Amino acid sequence: MSGAPLDGLRVLEIPSFVASPLCGLTLAQLGAEVIRIDPIGGAGDQHRWPLAPSGTSIYWTGLNKAKKSVTLNFRDADGQRILAGLVAASGPGGGIVLTNAVGRPWLGYDQLVRVRPDVIHLQILGHRDGRPAVDYTVNAGLGFPLITGPEGHQGPVNHVLPAWDVACGLYAAVGLLSAERHRRLTGEGSRITLALEDVALAVTAHLGFLTEARLTGADRPRIGNHLYGGFARDFATGDGERVMVIAVTARHFAGLAAATGLAPTFAELERLLGADFAVDGDRYAHREVIASLLAPWFACRSVADIGRDLDGASVLWSRYRRFTDLVGDGSLDGHPMLREIDQPGVGPVLAAASPLEQDGRLGPSPASRLGADTAEVLTGLLGLSAAEVRALADRGVAGEAPTGEVPAGDGSG
Amino acid sequence: MSGAPLDGLRVLEIPSFVASPLCGLTLAQLGAEVIRIDPIGGAGDQHRWPLAPSGTSIYWTGLNKAKKSVTLNFRDADGQRILAGLVAASGPGGGIVLTNAVGRPWLGYDQLVRVRPDVIHLQILGHRDGRPAVDYTVNAGLGFPLITGPEGHQGPVNHVLPAWDVACGLYAAVGLLSAERHRRLTGEGSRITLALEDVALAVTAHLGFLTEARLTGADRPRIGNHLYGGFARDFATGDGERVMVIAVTARHFAGLAAATGLAPTFAELERLLGADFAVDGDRYAHREVIASLLAPWFACRSVADIGRDLDGASVLWSRYRRFTDLVGDGSLDGHPMLREIDQPGVGPVLAAASPLEQDGRLGPSPASRLGADTAEVLTGLLGLSAAEVRALADRGVAGEAPTGEVPAGDGSG
Repeated sequence: MSGAPLDGLRVLEIPSFVASPLCGLTLAQLGAEVIRIDPIGGAGDQHRWPLAPSGTSIYWTGLNKAKKSVTLNFRDADGQRILAGLVAASGPGGGIVLTNAVGRPWLGYDQLVRVRPDVIHLQILGHRDGRPAVDYTVNAGLGFPLITGPEGHQGPVNHVLPAWDVACGLYAAVGLLSAERHRRLTGEGSRITLALEDVALAVTAHLGFLTEARLTGADRPRIGNHLYGGFARDFATGDGERVMVIAVTARHFAGLAAATGLAPTFAELERLLGADFAVDGDRYAHREVIASLLAPWFACRSVADIGRDLDGASVLWSRYRRFTDLVGDGSLDGHPMLREIDQPGVGPVLAAASPLEQDGRLGPSPASRLGADTAEVLTGLLGLSAAEVRALADRGVAGEAPTGEVPAGDGSG
Repeated sequence: MSGAPLDGLRVLEIPSFVASPLCGLTLAQLGAEVIRIDPIGGAGDQHRWPLAPSGTSIYWTGLNKAKKSVTLNFRDADGQRILAGLVAASGPGGGIVLTNAVGRPWLGYDQLVRVRPDVIHLQILGHRDGRPAVDYTVNAGLGFPLITGPEGHQGPVNHVLPAWDVACGLYAAVGLLSAERHRRLTGEGSRITLALEDVALAVTAHLGFLTEARLTGADRPRIGNHLYGGFARDFATGDGERVMVIAVTARHFAGLAAATGLAPTFAELERLLGADFAVDGDRYAHREVIASLLAPWFACRSVADIGRDLDGASVLWSRYRRFTDLVGDGSLDGHPMLREIDQPGVGPVLAAASPLEQDGRLGPSPASRLGADTAEVLTGLLGLSAAEVRALADRGVAGEAPTGEVPAGDGSG
């Protein structure tokens, strides 16, 4: 492949928190020039945990790799004018704005379409009416926390992975690329909104949860680590570990039965119960007895033994690892997606490139220091002189103060 | 906007399970013509739960909305030739193949690039080396299940939402759109692989989990529904419900303190503890005492009271709902993303369009019956006559048998 797939694309990202930075990162790692524009001092996510000993946010630097960083004082009319200028001046692959700000007219589509008629403007919202929401409130409203977690547990169990934020950021990337295709073919820009809650609701609907609840009038039971409508569960091993074992298909279940030597037992059990474990629903209905028969096999074997016996068979399984296992057990050594890079403020970090593996995949590159690319972007795109840029910095309109730590503003949308 | 953003794009999807169907659905709902090609009788996900009373999979129909359905006998050389023909004949916006099959040369890039030199071929894998994996095994290997769930709980807690599958499907859509842009600009096709495990690993790295584990040598504690590095938790209400309450920023926390009348108490507490609850880490360090002071306020109020007091304030909160609440409480009535459609085999379902809201957003449309579009696609793209299509069906090469239920094959990759 000659060049990266998104060479020539230029995106202005005025974001905070997970979804929009992940969108920008996803595009940047495919070759787009992504310019993240923050308020002076940084947005609300500038100091989000986890932090390095220096106080630099591991989280922020992780999500803003491979981008340019510009800071502007959005409260200043000149700061707002510079932003509009960047939208207007960003070339044929530019004029693409990604933001989650609400109630800031100078960042809105109506304003920016005046300076750039073919602007592509994607606004990420919490709720579709503009009320704020975050992953954890959206998830609480949906139903997943009340069917997650150990059987018999009372109360909700939140997910730790901000799954809806991740999905929202990736949907946003799809939206921008679709709109850029449309613009290339028709010359037309796009105004797109994407609500975090709508992302969650759409995925929930696509996966069948809404229809199931409407048809049955009932909620799925809380079934711990079992798999709804199939057979899967975690098992304790003889060496004090736990493994997850999954039979999604009839073939997987037959493989599991054969590898554990339980095929005759399961065949007899099917006869006794009038069941057919090749059928998803029968594996699910009889999950407890199946699991009870399997448990002793796992309980008297080490993970290594289990791996030896299951890896040849058509069985899906994995040992549960901690994050410290993952980074310490050598399994990531030499992984072509990962590279150790030097992240200013953090030190050496194991950073990931795009998971989309193809010729010419770009290696991961570090995040800029907040505001570090302000002068370069303002001179390059707006044609300002170095003296003009310095004057803007001195007036607190653009770029970070040259020395000392600037206190974090609350830039949340 | 004139037309949908992906008008003219044609994608051949040879998938099963969540990631690739979600990718195809995402593109189809933006206007692409997506042709899902299954083995005769269906792939391994054809009967996945939840099921409608008729036995039709709610899951399958949910993920395959707005696509055409073709069935081919992949074991037959003619079936394989038809597939190659569809890749070759699918026009300038076509030659885009999405698959998760492994070890099937006739579906591989090396074969298909011969019939279409500019083919865009994206293969979803479990592990990058081709070994199978599913969401639940990938998640087990990463670390999340051991920090999810109630404090003090022993053992892993799996997520119910297949979050990695969802992310993988959306990354695949980003990959195909990026590659299509590249092809339009350079004429070059692309060979892309995307491993489910790499998706999970990349997101985990981007969010800082790997770096944190390497830097500290320790794992995050299991903290139930608290928010790591901030203040958030669920609270029981006076009317027997639960609410999730989040203060991501200093402004949120000040809003929460003011709305609950606890601002003076928190100010005094900060003084006593030498803490500053405007700082993320201090809110997190003292989360238990903060939560203990807040709990009585929630415990003596109904959800309605809480809403009245918090909605005006800068506080993020949500009631926990069950799926049955979500579909039954009227909150989805008139939602512009949702529409009740008639899904053959299921009945009326509340289906979601793309969450990307823009002019000309396509409404949701139902899934085809398995194989129902075989004749149309083969005559339209390959120029076969109706008699030739019938002969292929009679020989079991293409299309479903006209009557009766065909037993499900195990088409898993």
